[in-house]
Amino acid sequence: MNTRVIEFSTKGNTHILNITPELDRILREENVRDGILFLSAIGSTGGITTMEYEPGLEKDLRQTFEQLFPYKTNYAHNSTWADDNGHSHLRSSFLKTSSFVSVTGGKLDLGTWQQVVFIDFDTRPRDRRILVKIVT
Amino acid sequence: MNTRVIEFSTKGNTHILNITPELDRILREENVRDGILFLSAIGSTGGITTMEYEPGLEKDLRQTFEQLFPYKTNYAHNSTWADDNGHSHLRSSFLKTSSFVSVTGGKLDLGTWQQVVFIDFDTRPRDRRILVKIVT
Amino acid sequence: MNTRVIEFSTKGNTHILNITPELDRILREENVRDGILFLSAIGSTGGITTMEYEPGLEKDLRQTFEQLFPYKTNYAHNSTWADDNGHSHLRSSFLKTSSFVSVTGGKLDLGTWQQVVFIDFDTRPRDRRILVKIVT
Repeated sequence: MNTRVIEFSTKGNTHILNITPELDRILREENVRDGILFLSAIGSTGGITTMEYEPGLEKDLRQTFEQLFPYKTNYAHNSTWADDNGHSHLRSSFLKTSSFVSVTGGKLDLGTWQQVVFIDFDTRPRDRRILVKIVT
Repeated sequence: MNTRVIEFSTKGNTHILNITPELDRILREENVRDGILFLSAIGSTGGITTMEYEPGLEKDLRQTFEQLFPYKTNYAHNSTWADDNGHSHLRSSFLKTSSFVSVTGGKLDLGTWQQVVFIDFDTRPRDRRILVKIVT
Repeated sequence: MNTRVIEFSTKGNTHILNITPELDRILREENVRDGILFLSAIGSTGGITTMEYEPGLEKDLRQTFEQLFPYKTNYAHNSTWADDNGHSHLRSSFLKTSSFVSVTGGKLDLGTWQQVVFIDFDTRPRDRRILVKIVT
């Protein structure tokens, strides 16, 4: 099983990054025609999903995360570590840090308006790593 | 890696469809004894999960989606496209469009009261495709 | 494809259990260096995700589930079965009962503060089974 690594920097604070171009590049470089890419973001304050990556939805999605899992200073996690990222952990556990994308005929099995995104919920800029396992 | 396609029409508006019979049929036709089915719904306004597929829960689940990600006309996405399905995209990004079901001894690894469902969050009837990758 | 089973008892009521030690044990016993573990929890009232497994976040996560999917007696599901676990099903459908963890160099691809957890949303103690399919 081949493994590739995607590395990048984020701004944190629910920064949404389109990682589809990186996956396309891996596909080409590894010459995958039919298979599955299994993505694992390392850490407990990020998340992976798909969306139509356009500024309007980016704003809506960030707002929805804030409404459902608001930034608050009084999470029990924050007391444990004198930290302020309790909400980041909650968002990550709900969205999950792993996901897969299958490949057919050398193309990702996504809709025309569908991209794979990594979301960084932490409260500061971070360097992130996503491991990509390739099964063919 | 073998690929199968499931195609069907939906009513949209958080229509919940039980796709377990289709998966059972694929298992039998492909003679899978032990393996995993990887499901990828194409598009950014659907979702895949499991549930006890009975009318009461169907109602509860639809109501929960409406409470957490309400239909509203003023999502930023709607302004971008003069569209009304901002909430559909949000629901899809949270639930995700991919999922897997493993198979042991020729049977899906599900509970007695557990079915695999596709949910169409878009605001109109749609023709949908789910790609099923079979790993054994 | 090798299959292992993890079995354990829970207290129900959104009891969060760290199953990472079990996965580590399976890795060693099966001698997995590079691969993926695919986890399927059987039943429609549990869920699998990752989190920083510490008491503060455990409390925050349980509270968040209660806020987003509150215990209520008047879910339609409860009327169907004269049951009281409608909220358990909703939580399970949102979090999902399946997840995967990849393995590189004989170690789970997780952050230092990231554990794999099973959450039992049912309203009573349960005996649970998670099937682990090993792909290398």
